Amino acid sequence: MPSGSKTKTQIWVVENSKKRLRQDYLTTEEPLEIRLTSPRRTVAVTMRTPGADFELAAGFLYGEGVINCKQDIQRISYCVEGEQRYNIVNVELRQGLIPDLQPLERHFYTSSACGVCGKASLEALRLRGCPVVASSLMVTPEIIYSLSNQLRAAQGIFTATGGLHAAGLFDAQGQLLHLREDIGRHNALDKLIGTALLSDELPLNNHLVMVSGRSSFEILQKSTAAGVPIVCSVSAPSSLAVSVAEEFGITLIGFLRGERFNIYTGSQRISVV
Amino acid sequence: MPSGSKTKTQIWVVENSKKRLRQDYLTTEEPLEIRLTSPRRTVAVTMRTPGADFELAAGFLYGEGVINCKQDIQRISYCVEGEQRYNIVNVELRQGLIPDLQPLERHFYTSSACGVCGKASLEALRLRGCPVVASSLMVTPEIIYSLSNQLRAAQGIFTATGGLHAAGLFDAQGQLLHLREDIGRHNALDKLIGTALLSDELPLNNHLVMVSGRSSFEILQKSTAAGVPIVCSVSAPSSLAVSVAEEFGITLIGFLRGERFNIYTGSQRISVV
Repeated sequence: MPSGSKTKTQIWVVENSKKRLRQDYLTTEEPLEIRLTSPRRTVAVTMRTPGADFELAAGFLYGEGVINCKQDIQRISYCVEGEQRYNIVNVELRQGLIPDLQPLERHFYTSSACGVCGKASLEALRLRGCPVVASSLMVTPEIIYSLSNQLRAAQGIFTATGGLHAAGLFDAQGQLLHLREDIGRHNALDKLIGTALLSDELPLNNHLVMVSGRSSFEILQKSTAAGVPIVCSVSAPSSLAVSVAEEFGITLIGFLRGERFNIYTGSQRISVV
Repeated sequence: MPSGSKTKTQIWVVENSKKRLRQDYLTTEEPLEIRLTSPRRTVAVTMRTPGADFELAAGFLYGEGVINCKQDIQRISYCVEGEQRYNIVNVELRQGLIPDLQPLERHFYTSSACGVCGKASLEALRLRGCPVVASSLMVTPEIIYSLSNQLRAAQGIFTATGGLHAAGLFDAQGQLLHLREDIGRHNALDKLIGTALLSDELPLNNHLVMVSGRSSFEILQKSTAAGVPIVCSVSAPSSLAVSVAEEFGITLIGFLRGERFNIYTGSQRISVV
């Protein structure tokens, strides 16, 4: 069975400085590897929500100019064996079609032979030697509440264009240290961590990071590498983001708006009754 | 001079079925190529908003485990010559540091020798033979207004998790034909266009597409390939998205919320006084 598009979980809802347990759903995030069978080649690995995987593969290949119509595809199927079979899609092109793969050179791709899954993505982080985040940081809900307003107030370009993601670095008292903006959420975070790196401030074991938008695998991967104990976002985390946070001891907060937020992992760092 | 982080433009604001011209700002989107000088290699090309480019390169390399501290970097600089020099960053590592580049294998990268810029990205679309969208489609503001509510109403998973992007395909009367969801905006659109492809509905010359979130280069690139004449989004387009729309004859609509939207390009397709 392919994974579902949503994953059940338990969260703490913090409101008016009180917390209560609630059942919730996360958007599933898992890698999908798109392979051509002939020439045998992986053409893309993308973090996606399971569902309509064959359509995703077809649409991707069309968008890149590898295929031009339905008839260019002979067959699309999941990989037949292995734990990760529903995360690997094989596309067999019409016989005689020799696709131009050059445009794909510029794409995110993998040479990994062992396939992909959420577990493998976590394993890769472990193999890179990222340690569990060691931090005795504890903060009050009031400090968490304050981050979102500070981020918004400091967002210069956003105010003008409405089109930017932001990532903010805060100290243990909730003071904004750096803010970086970009059209890509992951770029905003790279800029932020790069700023801390070039200022010799790493690791960020006594800091909080807040990002606009959602928390995906990539956001947690970058935060883990930088040793950040508390990661907050305005919107929802993905299932894989929650798995990384759990595994690497990060407190993950989502839907931080006004005097309300959800705690997905590591609630011991938030001092609340 | 590097490009600025925002770009001035003129838009049509449509409200209460009337339109007026207004000056506005777009978030600048341009590719950045990150190169190591030794071993000489391009390690990433990312669509970013210009600004804090050295921090972006440093943060990216840190997040991927290529460098571990500030001292691992000898020097970061822009490419010294050429039109695209501010879109190429060279990173010289500390002498003797032999980085493990294997994790980067999985990344978006380019083998292009001639560098990158918005103009080159447009050129690549032209070279792929994407024609200017040929369509005599015209719609009323009322049809445009209706898309956003339909998209939201049909979004099953979003309601449960709050964490999903959606892409919807509509016919000339504004009837929803297909909806696809994903944690990634570009994946949602690939799924949507893949669905149309597998149903033999391409090209989409008489259709409208609406995406949640923003319109970036990638969204317009995929829409161009599928021949979509009208592309709408809930939020802002980037500068490069507007350039692609202009070049390929697409009507680009943003900030579509309730009975209000902005027209960035191709206003002739919206019948309004």
